[in-house]
Amino acid sequence: MTATEPTHRGRARIAEPGEGIGLDELALATRNHGMPLEALRYDVTPPGLHYVLTHYDIPAVDPATWSLEVGGAVGRPLRLTLEDLQRRPAVTSRVLLECAGNGRARFEPRPVSQPWLLEAVGTAEWTGTPLAPLLEEAGIADGAVDVVFTGADHGVERGVEQDYARGLPLAEAMRPEVLLVWGMNGVPLPPQHGAPLRLLVPGWYGMAHVKWLTRVEVLDRPFDGFQNATAYRLKVDAGDPGEPVTRIAPRALLNPPGWPDFMTRERFLRPGPVPLTGRAWSGRAPVTGVDVSTDGGATWSAAELAPADPAHPFAWRAWQYPWTAEPGTWELLVRATDAMGSQPTEQVWNRQGMANNLVQRVPVTVLG
Amino acid sequence: MTATEPTHRGRARIAEPGEGIGLDELALATRNHGMPLEALRYDVTPPGLHYVLTHYDIPAVDPATWSLEVGGAVGRPLRLTLEDLQRRPAVTSRVLLECAGNGRARFEPRPVSQPWLLEAVGTAEWTGTPLAPLLEEAGIADGAVDVVFTGADHGVERGVEQDYARGLPLAEAMRPEVLLVWGMNGVPLPPQHGAPLRLLVPGWYGMAHVKWLTRVEVLDRPFDGFQNATAYRLKVDAGDPGEPVTRIAPRALLNPPGWPDFMTRERFLRPGPVPLTGRAWSGRAPVTGVDVSTDGGATWSAAELAPADPAHPFAWRAWQYPWTAEPGTWELLVRATDAMGSQPTEQVWNRQGMANNLVQRVPVTVLG
Repeated sequence: MTATEPTHRGRARIAEPGEGIGLDELALATRNHGMPLEALRYDVTPPGLHYVLTHYDIPAVDPATWSLEVGGAVGRPLRLTLEDLQRRPAVTSRVLLECAGNGRARFEPRPVSQPWLLEAVGTAEWTGTPLAPLLEEAGIADGAVDVVFTGADHGVERGVEQDYARGLPLAEAMRPEVLLVWGMNGVPLPPQHGAPLRLLVPGWYGMAHVKWLTRVEVLDRPFDGFQNATAYRLKVDAGDPGEPVTRIAPRALLNPPGWPDFMTRERFLRPGPVPLTGRAWSGRAPVTGVDVSTDGGATWSAAELAPADPAHPFAWRAWQYPWTAEPGTWELLVRATDAMGSQPTEQVWNRQGMANNLVQRVPVTVLG
Repeated sequence: MTATEPTHRGRARIAEPGEGIGLDELALATRNHGMPLEALRYDVTPPGLHYVLTHYDIPAVDPATWSLEVGGAVGRPLRLTLEDLQRRPAVTSRVLLECAGNGRARFEPRPVSQPWLLEAVGTAEWTGTPLAPLLEEAGIADGAVDVVFTGADHGVERGVEQDYARGLPLAEAMRPEVLLVWGMNGVPLPPQHGAPLRLLVPGWYGMAHVKWLTRVEVLDRPFDGFQNATAYRLKVDAGDPGEPVTRIAPRALLNPPGWPDFMTRERFLRPGPVPLTGRAWSGRAPVTGVDVSTDGGATWSAAELAPADPAHPFAWRAWQYPWTAEPGTWELLVRATDAMGSQPTEQVWNRQGMANNLVQRVPVTVLG
């Protein structure tokens, strides 16, 4: 694979050593947007600060004429309007979402795709109705394996023209916390978050939460569409089929202290007590601890982690650590641990830049 | 100026020929965000799709303890709470904003700064109270020249630590359409748009609409702060003092037809009638026409421009052009003209990449 091969021949391109971000990556970075990390201060990410990743274009869906089809290996196919869905029992859940590609732009070598640094996260209050009772009403056929969710967003990816579609194992689709969502933070879903209806699969990376839903199809075989079979897999070699990307690995992020330089984003602060704060989460197991290093990773200390809120098991959790900043340059690191392990301090590379949870490093200069 | 000189020595850096986007530019591109151009379909940009440019961090301002100071060369300095302001006459205006750096990333050579392609725009319904009566109540001193607006956002820019502050000529500040704004699209300003209060100077590029306002100060001399005297000037040579950046130059943008390739953002469509649509605006004079070329600029045809809406003189205007797409590759261009002139088809370069309104070019492939 060389830098001159096009990306639409079925393989993601890997940047050459030292190659700057290209206009193609920039076009994605200016369309999609991350959550500026100072927004870690909010329990619920305010509208417009939540990360957004759209594979193709944001489609124009008219909620008045839109309907959702539930079909495939079911006994009683359904077609539901938004009103039909909104007459069903409604639930509001505070759930963190993170893009599977978060942190990709710092991988060496860099997979060429949406070039996230660390800001592809957000937590919202999502309102919708549980999916499982709807599938039960449709009558899931014996031998059903996957449920495929198709959106109205249409485009081409590595030569494959498609409506965005993702398959989810039936057992995951039947989890009680999986919702069909029409509301975000108390108002109707905005266009970029999937209006009029999206899927919410708490604990999974963003690619599973299909937006602009038009069809739910039960399959009696594993789904082999592009987004499951080709994209969103952990591969080291291009020929490797790879493991599927599923649940969110643990991560902690620091609300960067002090103030930035406009261009370099270097950070400065005054000496004295500096309460370091941030958020931590994991989609695969409960977070058990957060550790902070103020000396580049040489030594680590436990941060104070807010207790898990039983009402919001899929939200992020606040942490804090009291630091006394002394003049000089420091590198702040933060590392989450869940019941399955800790964030790595060295990169664990894969060729699509997926599910990378390398610890964050924040260099700061404390003024004299 | 070479690529290795730091940017914080008072001069903006210019990228070397062929130099890719750097991590510093990417850090800005992932924090700030543009309006995906398919959102040109909306008369009013939905929340979260409007462009955002923050020089430093989004500050945390508590509206309960916040107040606005009006002082300087006035007879009766004022201090107003948000409630005080909201008891004054309220106005809602539909106004387009555009970042002065829009289009910068396509300049050759490229000024190193926030690397916008063409998406740093948006139109919102802004609610606030006119500034002029407030200044009159404060009693503007004889000999007043400029009014300086200072925000709560704090950072460093080319070595200068500062709260973001911009001066506006007194005559501009006294225009009846200049507002102190607390609402956006019917809800309180979100944090990234300047909560609890921002300035709105219809017709001017975004840098004038100071967010997170804390102080309005009348000066009896021209303001010589960083954002007026150093940044936001049209300079070709670094030593050139340059003309100030003020009002928005004319621009038309196309809502790109068809569907995109995820990575390359190349666009594809099927042959047949394709209504080309978009928006056009100018902050310096009324838009008088929009022209479209479907052959790379060889020939141009007039688009149909929606009539100016007297209720919204500072909003963008819709345009449309009926195109019959035939198989092949085409380059679509769109060009706005106002009473002062047309958009250029060749770049008019300046070293900060400001006020660049080069025509948009959209290559498309019409399938056979």
